[in-house]
Amino acid sequence: MTERLTQQLKFLTEIDKMKNIMRQTLLLDKSRNENDAEHSWHFAVMAMTLFEYCAVENVDINRVIKMALVHDLVEIYAGDAPAFDVAANEGKAEREQESADKLFALLPSDQSPEFRALWDEFEEMQTPDSMYANAIDRLQPFIGSYHTEYHPWRKFNVTLAQVLKRMAPVKHALPGLWKFVEIVIAEALEKGGIQRG
Amino acid sequence: MTERLTQQLKFLTEIDKMKNIMRQTLLLDKSRNENDAEHSWHFAVMAMTLFEYCAVENVDINRVIKMALVHDLVEIYAGDAPAFDVAANEGKAEREQESADKLFALLPSDQSPEFRALWDEFEEMQTPDSMYANAIDRLQPFIGSYHTEYHPWRKFNVTLAQVLKRMAPVKHALPGLWKFVEIVIAEALEKGGIQRG
Repeated sequence: MTERLTQQLKFLTEIDKMKNIMRQTLLLDKSRNENDAEHSWHFAVMAMTLFEYCAVENVDINRVIKMALVHDLVEIYAGDAPAFDVAANEGKAEREQESADKLFALLPSDQSPEFRALWDEFEEMQTPDSMYANAIDRLQPFIGSYHTEYHPWRKFNVTLAQVLKRMAPVKHALPGLWKFVEIVIAEALEKGGIQRG
Repeated sequence: MTERLTQQLKFLTEIDKMKNIMRQTLLLDKSRNENDAEHSWHFAVMAMTLFEYCAVENVDINRVIKMALVHDLVEIYAGDAPAFDVAANEGKAEREQESADKLFALLPSDQSPEFRALWDEFEEMQTPDSMYANAIDRLQPFIGSYHTEYHPWRKFNVTLAQVLKRMAPVKHALPGLWKFVEIVIAEALEKGGIQRG
């Protein structure tokens, strides 16, 4: 066995830890919290299924799917910082950069940049692919909240302004879904799942 | 909201059930069994990472990744039939066809065929993409067994002949990994994780 293959297998076993990185969203049956591996898979299938609504031009769905698969890998060492948890987001960028340095270094040096570049691009949200990817990454837990009595929103007393800010990439990249987003938000406001303000 | 989007969102919420379809493989930390959503994600990342070893010509890695994402969706209604559980595999093909009919029908009628075709192709294992995909689908739990004291193999008293048959697509599509497979098998035989015969 080559050193190269040994490195790749080490990376592929290390990322098994994604199955234990827990998020604030629940499974839709409310039986437990969702983990990062599950979220990444669901994000990828959602990107495939809803691609016809993508209003950003020149998006390569195949690159978006790869982004979905790797976008949360840095949480293996940095942990999940829930979107609406202000304290957990302090220092997040630095922690994730350090985690990326450590994790992607497990791969052979000529392969690591492909994975790292996908993650950097997703984070920076400046390219068409990353704009669509970030929209889906936000839509997936939004749908989760809707089906679980707004669990994560209630937990963090989330306000309308916070949700609208968080969902801005959806409004931009998926305007055809904005009516759905508005319906969900209106119902959540009425039922106390989102705080006015 | 259009009827079309309603159908797509229904499909995307229904497939959340993948997170509760349990497999015989354990997480590598042995804390619990793995589920289909996690397996599908890991399979997709593994296909990306090991693609340089693919010896089958004309494989489109982007289609392989899509196959990985959808290849186990039929288990939402049909359940997981563990590879080495002979009884569980009786009638599996019929159950999965029925499940596919039911699940993919949730999608709009012009979108459903794309998903169904990917699954059909994966199952038939006749095209380059599906040969590589099936090899990775078998390698992922093989690596899992190796790191968990051969848990699924011990449970079903798996024999050398069964493992070699199961891993034949890896030998064909990923000959560069066969030495690794042989090393794992030799060690498992020595430690009683695989039965001789």
